[in-house]
Amino acid sequence: MRALMFDGSLHLTDLPTPEPKPGEALVRVLTAGICNTDLEIARGYMGFRGVPGHEFVGIVDWCSNPHLRGKRVVGEINCVCGTCHYCQLEMPHHCLNRTTLGIFNRNGAFAEYLTLPEENLHIVPPSIRDDVAAFAEPLAAAFRIPEQIEIAEDDRVVVLGDGKLGQLIAQVLWLRTKRLVCVGKHAAKLDLLKRLRIATARADEPIEPGADIVVEATGAPAGLARALELVRPEGVVVLKTTSHAATALDLSQPVVNEVTIMGSRCGPFRPALDALALGNVEVRPMITETCWLEEAVEAFERAQASDVMKVMVHVNA
Amino acid sequence: MRALMFDGSLHLTDLPTPEPKPGEALVRVLTAGICNTDLEIARGYMGFRGVPGHEFVGIVDWCSNPHLRGKRVVGEINCVCGTCHYCQLEMPHHCLNRTTLGIFNRNGAFAEYLTLPEENLHIVPPSIRDDVAAFAEPLAAAFRIPEQIEIAEDDRVVVLGDGKLGQLIAQVLWLRTKRLVCVGKHAAKLDLLKRLRIATARADEPIEPGADIVVEATGAPAGLARALELVRPEGVVVLKTTSHAATALDLSQPVVNEVTIMGSRCGPFRPALDALALGNVEVRPMITETCWLEEAVEAFERAQASDVMKVMVHVNA
Repeated sequence: MRALMFDGSLHLTDLPTPEPKPGEALVRVLTAGICNTDLEIARGYMGFRGVPGHEFVGIVDWCSNPHLRGKRVVGEINCVCGTCHYCQLEMPHHCLNRTTLGIFNRNGAFAEYLTLPEENLHIVPPSIRDDVAAFAEPLAAAFRIPEQIEIAEDDRVVVLGDGKLGQLIAQVLWLRTKRLVCVGKHAAKLDLLKRLRIATARADEPIEPGADIVVEATGAPAGLARALELVRPEGVVVLKTTSHAATALDLSQPVVNEVTIMGSRCGPFRPALDALALGNVEVRPMITETCWLEEAVEAFERAQASDVMKVMVHVNA
Repeated sequence: MRALMFDGSLHLTDLPTPEPKPGEALVRVLTAGICNTDLEIARGYMGFRGVPGHEFVGIVDWCSNPHLRGKRVVGEINCVCGTCHYCQLEMPHHCLNRTTLGIFNRNGAFAEYLTLPEENLHIVPPSIRDDVAAFAEPLAAAFRIPEQIEIAEDDRVVVLGDGKLGQLIAQVLWLRTKRLVCVGKHAAKLDLLKRLRIATARADEPIEPGADIVVEATGAPAGLARALELVRPEGVVVLKTTSHAATALDLSQPVVNEVTIMGSRCGPFRPALDALALGNVEVRPMITETCWLEEAVEAFERAQASDVMKVMVHVNA
């Protein structure tokens, strides 16, 4: 099968079609989205070698469960052992023996086929288009936030970052509170949110401090310092940026203000698929480019441009 | 009155006896403890100029409330406006207009007299000695932790730091869970905890990672990185160190592990006084030196030595 490979550099190659292990499904990939984590991986993040890609929609080509065969699915990316300490504590996302699709020890979605445990798959309702369904994974990551912290309808929320993840987070949290502003550097990106009537601000505009919750989704290490300026005492800063760059931080201020800084990663697919099916979250305007797998190397280049948001890679028709 | 003054350097001086404002009490200081924050202040922390000292016991010399006059008291250090946004939200410790005894815009306890709002004062039960009562304030800061997070009796807790605050925290959290270890660099300090049958480890010994809760009370900026190594996924790191030194930190790991980092400052006096009265917490072995106010400058020097723990300054007999 054709696949995009990262082995220090990014290139297309031919690989054997993967063989599903017991309990796994073979999935024919339809479409896969390029995520900022993929761009980080192409710069060496996690030391990953293999096929990147973890945001996808595909068709189950083969699996032992007859109810899944031939179904259109999206998939949770953490593949877990089920027996370690954290699996037993029902924290499978933190499984000690996990592999992660396209991120850690498991080939990902920029290939004609991938394998995932059947238990990771979610059938996509027919009303959701392929390119929309491919947002299920990052949207689930946005839905992780209301799973971790309570958000009341009078809470004031600041989302730092107008990129793909920042916008999904802004849309998800806006379902909870209308006292929300998304802060970004790119007028065209902020316009997407304005069209949804979500308040926005330019990063160089003054923002009223004292927010109950600040979500840091800038992708830049400096975002946390800005978040700490904006959050109220005893407020919460949610960290979504996984940057391996070290950040210099004055910690006395979060101690004096008793701020909670909370890391946040993968989230629940169910509310994400519901929101996509119901149209509560609008993702299509975020797709600024599409291409075929054969053009994926160039697409990775394009995805780094500041005016490009989601790039969708069509793999199989 | 005689007072210790910091105005860029530390020296003894004569100041007018302070005049209590309406609602305030005039307190004759009996004994005041030297805290690490005082040492930081003497290095420029908070830009404070005035009389340091915020851990004290004293006698109410004058106040409008007859029930307080002549009583032996300890006092909460944050003096609040009662009307600002955070006071109205019942978060007085975060009052926007607060002054803080001996730390911010208010002269402190290394003087013959201090003033505090009557509402800040707590009468000390007669069974508590002066030098023990002066621990009420830092002990309250330790009791802030169980006020902020739930600690179950099977939670595994690591306290980093064997200094004064680390030991108080270890003793307080040990009341909740016996699965606790206090990690420090000083054999003599750790011995104080061993005598209380609290488990200890040297900082250079391997510590089992995966702790539910790690409290960072080393006073050193590097403590947080160590705490993040030791805490389990979705665990909590409580930050007690107020150091204004910038800390370089790789934030991708707390994001991937979804760790909560929580700042923690001042706490409730009631459980602190109860614990001192009941003997649930043992503080006297932590007093390694005592002196009179006239010797306070030298005492500040001594308090920085690694083998010195609490230095108590007797102000009035």
